[in-house]
Amino acid sequence: MPIHANSLDLAFHALSDPTRRAVVSRLAHGEAPVSMLAKPFDMALPSFAQHLQVLEESGLITSEKRGRSRWCSLARARFEEVADWMEAERRSWTGRLDRLEAYLDANREHEA
Amino acid sequence: MPIHANSLDLAFHALSDPTRRAVVSRLAHGEAPVSMLAKPFDMALPSFAQHLQVLEESGLITSEKRGRSRWCSLARARFEEVADWMEAERRSWTGRLDRLEAYLDANREHEA
Repeated sequence: MPIHANSLDLAFHALSDPTRRAVVSRLAHGEAPVSMLAKPFDMALPSFAQHLQVLEESGLITSEKRGRSRWCSLARARFEEVADWMEAERRSWTGRLDRLEAYLDANREHEA
Repeated sequence: MPIHANSLDLAFHALSDPTRRAVVSRLAHGEAPVSMLAKPFDMALPSFAQHLQVLEESGLITSEKRGRSRWCSLARARFEEVADWMEAERRSWTGRLDRLEAYLDANREHEA
């Protein structure tokens, strides 16, 4: 499996869970300590830490120890890779629909 | 888990595999019969059919029997839901970086 495919595999897998998506949404507004990230979730800290580990292993977030807390940030490169993949597919598809519509319009004019 | 979150869970999970992403990329260019979709993959048909089932259960594709073949199409609503989620997060984040940059620029001017 090519390295590029593998990084998308891990990133899409990381995003397939509502807790992990909520963490990504929170971090899109700026870095935060683990204790603050965990607060909205009714979840034992070890379970929450496991979600953070999946996100970190996917390359979507990074974390750093500062004094007594660990701070998390969104990692731009991996996030953009996923968003760019989705947008490229959306463009393929929208382009196809536009061409289909143009074709149908041309045929309608021809028939009129 | 809310229904909306669940549909994103399934869709992101479906996209976490390179074969399934390749099928989505192919279908973004237009509907295709299963036999044509399977051709590029060195994979037994039952394994390939399982990938299609994951995609179909996630709501990302639909399929329909026509004569002796089964045709697959991308399902717009679910695909857009995933793409829209990614873009909303990207906007949150880009907006934050823009505000941070504006703040730093303002401070630099103040110091100059």
